[in-house]
Amino acid sequence: MNEQFQDLLASIEPVDMSRAVAIQARLDDLTKPRGSLGRLEEIALQYALARGPGKPVLNKKKVFCFAGDHGVAAEGVSAYPAEVTPQMVYNMLEEGAAINVLAGLAGADLDVVDMGVNHDFPDRSRLRKYKVRHGSSNIAAGPAMSTDEAVRSIMAGAGLAREAGEQGYDLLATGEMGIANTTPATALYASLLDLPPETITGRGTGIDDATLARKTAVIRRALAVNADVSVSPLEKLAALGGFEIAGICGLILGAAAVRIPVVVDGFISSAAAVAAMQLSFGVSDYLFFSHLSNEQGHGAVMSRIGARPILDLDLRLGEGTGAALAMQVIEASVRIYNDMATFGSANVSEKKS
Amino acid sequence: MNEQFQDLLASIEPVDMSRAVAIQARLDDLTKPRGSLGRLEEIALQYALARGPGKPVLNKKKVFCFAGDHGVAAEGVSAYPAEVTPQMVYNMLEEGAAINVLAGLAGADLDVVDMGVNHDFPDRSRLRKYKVRHGSSNIAAGPAMSTDEAVRSIMAGAGLAREAGEQGYDLLATGEMGIANTTPATALYASLLDLPPETITGRGTGIDDATLARKTAVIRRALAVNADVSVSPLEKLAALGGFEIAGICGLILGAAAVRIPVVVDGFISSAAAVAAMQLSFGVSDYLFFSHLSNEQGHGAVMSRIGARPILDLDLRLGEGTGAALAMQVIEASVRIYNDMATFGSANVSEKKS
Repeated sequence: MNEQFQDLLASIEPVDMSRAVAIQARLDDLTKPRGSLGRLEEIALQYALARGPGKPVLNKKKVFCFAGDHGVAAEGVSAYPAEVTPQMVYNMLEEGAAINVLAGLAGADLDVVDMGVNHDFPDRSRLRKYKVRHGSSNIAAGPAMSTDEAVRSIMAGAGLAREAGEQGYDLLATGEMGIANTTPATALYASLLDLPPETITGRGTGIDDATLARKTAVIRRALAVNADVSVSPLEKLAALGGFEIAGICGLILGAAAVRIPVVVDGFISSAAAVAAMQLSFGVSDYLFFSHLSNEQGHGAVMSRIGARPILDLDLRLGEGTGAALAMQVIEASVRIYNDMATFGSANVSEKKS
Repeated sequence: MNEQFQDLLASIEPVDMSRAVAIQARLDDLTKPRGSLGRLEEIALQYALARGPGKPVLNKKKVFCFAGDHGVAAEGVSAYPAEVTPQMVYNMLEEGAAINVLAGLAGADLDVVDMGVNHDFPDRSRLRKYKVRHGSSNIAAGPAMSTDEAVRSIMAGAGLAREAGEQGYDLLATGEMGIANTTPATALYASLLDLPPETITGRGTGIDDATLARKTAVIRRALAVNADVSVSPLEKLAALGGFEIAGICGLILGAAAVRIPVVVDGFISSAAAVAAMQLSFGVSDYLFFSHLSNEQGHGAVMSRIGARPILDLDLRLGEGTGAALAMQVIEASVRIYNDMATFGSANVSEKKS
């Protein structure tokens, strides 16, 4: 499996920037003042570059919501009990969660991926079973998982991306469900981006001051305990991440390998994206960061990696909710590019002088 | 007509805030941490309050794009020739403009309203003819229009809102097309909000430094020339506005009167909204400011009136493009409110302690 993983990384190529001039020329010829559609134009350019030559198509969309439990929940770092992870998976399968509503509105399909929930689910049509283990180990005491388990998780996500490509999906989005998962995500950011834990540790689903202090201490302990075994990006993901985070990282890598852009949800998904970007440089050309999370620290992370999220709606739910909303902005951008009239075709006068 | 105008203003009532507790209680009972959907929850609350008792419905949507020409274009304040106003109206009627693409994606109908274009259009199904005059007078030399003409423009817009209500529309959006119209809009802001012209005068469709300096001087001249005849909000709208701006102001007032929320587009539409808010205090409960325009000064205006736009995508096109995009976020918010499962119905555990 390690060989397949190396092949995956090697297969990711940056976009062909030489096409940017022609794409921008078309954007400039549409019946609007140059640049007046702002970020929609930037998004259309990025999407067209990512998809490669030809008219950029955006029809089929899918959100993958990865679920996993976390041993570190035992440290009392979350406002919700761990049993909520499987409960919310069932809620998603019954179409009752926020992501069901928002994916539906975006015209996107939704699959829920069990990467490591501490519960055995029956077979369900929208549930994809890739459970590595019934929850990760407690990162405050040692690594969340072995690097072999991390690679297995990544390859599961990458396989889903490849499958989506074969099924004709044009745009994928990430989401997650996992009680306590802001704790491993924060530890991962601290390690991958060398950010001080106290500045990026936030309240997750809504913890009080005492719990926040405990959470920050737990993250510091996790970094110290795992220092020796978390040197490379893969080791960091294994030691400080979680099964759903590694699955998302794999989806991103797999999508980039087959040139399908991925819309990254909020705080947790971005941690997986940062890991993917460190595993393979070319990945960032295929990523849209959907929204600035209301979770403390996401802004610092976005600045550090030079990303400007599309939306800023104070969301802090996860599940893929922000990504599903941003899918609509991306679709709007691509439609603008494909469907607007040009100055010549519409007989509209161009700018003076 | 003045009596009808006074009746219109008198018919606008603020929302019943006593319903907010019950609406918020339902939002808090949905299967997500409290407040974790951020602005979507605020938008759902505002929408439900605006629509009044019962389940908030959001099915039929419509964008009204008001068009008008401006005498002040003769001062050389725009990068485009005035003939582009009718050309772009035809482009919209032929489905080639950005607003056609974005209204279509939002599932919204689109009507183009000729309030004062310097061109006689043939009859077309989506073109609404309310021409007051073939372009406003030059505000640098005197009032753009008489107060009677302003009232006629307002009542035309209000009539469209009432008609939309009778046709079962749930949400309306404003847009505009009018070469040179950032100049009257800026003058109107300066007068209505007492803001210095030089801090809020921007580059519109893309003017150079020399034109920007000329535009700022023209706006200062317009304010000076019209000082005596622009004391009340209605007089300011007449003296410094334009026919499409007054039409938008009327649509907003008319929609508030029949409790239909209105999504306000960018720099020009917001000027009409500020005028409407000064004409009737209750109006703001029915307004969603769609996006922070990239036009210089919009941020200062939004701060001054305490509004936080939904999107920030560097748009500066107008037409209703930002409003159409924001309609999707509003629809997402209302769907969340109506369609998500509750903790009880989905058997999901609530927060600890």
